[in-house]
Amino acid sequence: MRETLTKNLLLAQSGGPTAVINSSVCGIVDEAVRQPRIDGIYGAVNGILGVLHEDLVDLRHEEPATLQSLRRTPSAALGSCRHKLREDDYSRLLEVFKAHAIRFFLYAGGNDSMDTAHRVAQLAEEKKYAVQVIGIPKTVDNDLMVTDHCPGYGSVSRFNAIAARDSGLDTEAIYTSDTVKIFETMGRDTGWITASTALGKDDPDSAPHLIYLPERPFIPERFLKDVKSVYDRLGRVVICVCEGLKDERGEFLRASSKHIDIDKFRHPQLGGVGDYLVGLISENLKIKARCDKPGTIQRVSMTCASEVDLEEAYSVGQNALSKAIDGENDRMVTLVRKRNDPYECETGLVELDKVALKSKRVPDAFINKECNFVNDGFLEYAKPLIGEPLPHYVHLRKKRLEKLLPGYG
Amino acid sequence: MRETLTKNLLLAQSGGPTAVINSSVCGIVDEAVRQPRIDGIYGAVNGILGVLHEDLVDLRHEEPATLQSLRRTPSAALGSCRHKLREDDYSRLLEVFKAHAIRFFLYAGGNDSMDTAHRVAQLAEEKKYAVQVIGIPKTVDNDLMVTDHCPGYGSVSRFNAIAARDSGLDTEAIYTSDTVKIFETMGRDTGWITASTALGKDDPDSAPHLIYLPERPFIPERFLKDVKSVYDRLGRVVICVCEGLKDERGEFLRASSKHIDIDKFRHPQLGGVGDYLVGLISENLKIKARCDKPGTIQRVSMTCASEVDLEEAYSVGQNALSKAIDGENDRMVTLVRKRNDPYECETGLVELDKVALKSKRVPDAFINKECNFVNDGFLEYAKPLIGEPLPHYVHLRKKRLEKLLPGYG
Repeated sequence: MRETLTKNLLLAQSGGPTAVINSSVCGIVDEAVRQPRIDGIYGAVNGILGVLHEDLVDLRHEEPATLQSLRRTPSAALGSCRHKLREDDYSRLLEVFKAHAIRFFLYAGGNDSMDTAHRVAQLAEEKKYAVQVIGIPKTVDNDLMVTDHCPGYGSVSRFNAIAARDSGLDTEAIYTSDTVKIFETMGRDTGWITASTALGKDDPDSAPHLIYLPERPFIPERFLKDVKSVYDRLGRVVICVCEGLKDERGEFLRASSKHIDIDKFRHPQLGGVGDYLVGLISENLKIKARCDKPGTIQRVSMTCASEVDLEEAYSVGQNALSKAIDGENDRMVTLVRKRNDPYECETGLVELDKVALKSKRVPDAFINKECNFVNDGFLEYAKPLIGEPLPHYVHLRKKRLEKLLPGYG
Repeated sequence: MRETLTKNLLLAQSGGPTAVINSSVCGIVDEAVRQPRIDGIYGAVNGILGVLHEDLVDLRHEEPATLQSLRRTPSAALGSCRHKLREDDYSRLLEVFKAHAIRFFLYAGGNDSMDTAHRVAQLAEEKKYAVQVIGIPKTVDNDLMVTDHCPGYGSVSRFNAIAARDSGLDTEAIYTSDTVKIFETMGRDTGWITASTALGKDDPDSAPHLIYLPERPFIPERFLKDVKSVYDRLGRVVICVCEGLKDERGEFLRASSKHIDIDKFRHPQLGGVGDYLVGLISENLKIKARCDKPGTIQRVSMTCASEVDLEEAYSVGQNALSKAIDGENDRMVTLVRKRNDPYECETGLVELDKVALKSKRVPDAFINKECNFVNDGFLEYAKPLIGEPLPHYVHLRKKRLEKLLPGYG
């Protein structure tokens, strides 16, 4: 019997952009156009807000070349949002689905978005509205449960591995100036992103020398001891820290400040953890320190995107669509690592409620016992995700000439 | 008559590292090994400090492959320094030259280093010691006089053009979150680096929207008006600012702070201009703002290095050596632009005292009359320096579906 019911697909992007989330969109659309069972291919503008506001676009109207170029365009081409849904929003979502005959809903995002997708799926079932809801993992934070890793993470890791190494070369070059460098990465609650800076270390003495993750409370005394110890040995220190570091009371580290009322336009401003640590070091160790804080560019840098990550992002998008067509519902696509060397990864499926609102922290086994670096286990885990080896840099042998004069000064 | 006198070459790198200063070293050494009149090819470790301390290395002992790979290794392979010379240091430099038969001294650096080179050349002449001293322009700040531009600038510009564009895409994607982005670049006294972010603007509405250079005093009221105007039109603003912005009194803008004595490890910390502006905007316009501050990675990023810059850095190194061999002295190699489209550039020479201690600011003709962006003249000047066009990104056409429901909320 021939199906006559119109079946439209709606996809949406959520949360913080990444270098590869558009690659997932490309994967979805490439697969959707091959599916005779799909009529309209729609995108929501600015994520779930676009669904609520019925702000939808027809992706069949885009040039095929544009859609292909999405694979190399960072950020979220359809727009994203951070929007906390109210209880009555869910029924609105369903109304929009019904009005536009949405029978497949694909939602790319993190653990909040997976909760949204799960609740939509539940409500649809309760209301007997047939829709296949599939989540697509997307977060530089890499904190989703069950999946081996998250698309977006490999690229932010590659950026940070390269940037921390560059920052280290810079620090190494200038003698007696800026000898302590704080490199502040994203990652509010978990240290996955910060840990990735270790992938840039290509020599026991090279950067980064110390890494602090939010999985461990920050203890100033211990930190200062660590810094001094590296400084005494090498004369320089590169310290990679997570923006979400907290002290033993569970409070974020911040450069404290108070209003100095110079004029009406000078106002108090709280600096981040990097500024706090610069102050801590200069006041206690009397060493000049400086902070590099690439901020949002780390998550959308196409120049440093990982080829593995781009490919996997495409594949989870493609896979989400085919699973929806196969009748799967209330599931998220996962990445399942089959082997490490050579690296091989497949896609899998997990119930949305197993990932919704949950967060995966960097496991104890990946953190050294001094709480100031990662273990080899982490490096084995993360290395395949950043793709090609980092560009090769050289160091001079520096064969010294014999000194012929009395010492200087 | 055959010359029997040993003639050694000494080269040194000075000041902040760049992505391409090692390319200059490669150019020097490649040329030096072809010159039968040069015996030893020496490098000073950590710039002029290495000369003072007689800490010299023999570059003929390096593997040829290592020397070639320097072209793609950022930062300063020989080490650099920031060291203010005392009066009696100059005679020490000359002693070291004599002891090691240094007859050619090549010094890569900025306007301070050109002063050092000039004074060494003067003293050598006064003391009748024959040495050819040639300066090699090197500074991401692009503030050397006479030369059209400085090696290092094209690459830092490419980094910032890409990063500001990425930062803009990121800001554009997330609706109702971090809608104002401050992008803080290097450039203590001049706005060349900050101006280069304009090269990333590929659409009238795309980032950057506002650019503030230290060539103009920062006026908070005008700034807030500018920001509000863009925000009201687009709902987002990306503002590129120089770390060296000053107010009308000539004082650096800083996030003011006072000691809050929570515990002995919480100390006052002055934030930079980015933090100050985040505070200014949030307090006065009640809009959420965020700061990206790539810091030192902008000057040593090989991933974003400009091919034109790498090539020119090599060529000024090579040229400095051949000019020294030709008997030139007390000169700096310059870059002389012959035409813009297609871009063509040659090397020239200038007396060191014409560049020593002087600084070239962004000219008035390159800054718009509102003091919040650059003019097309700047774009024409800077575009050839960043090399290949920036990676191509696409925007979706976003053909809207007809709305079928009453409005939301």
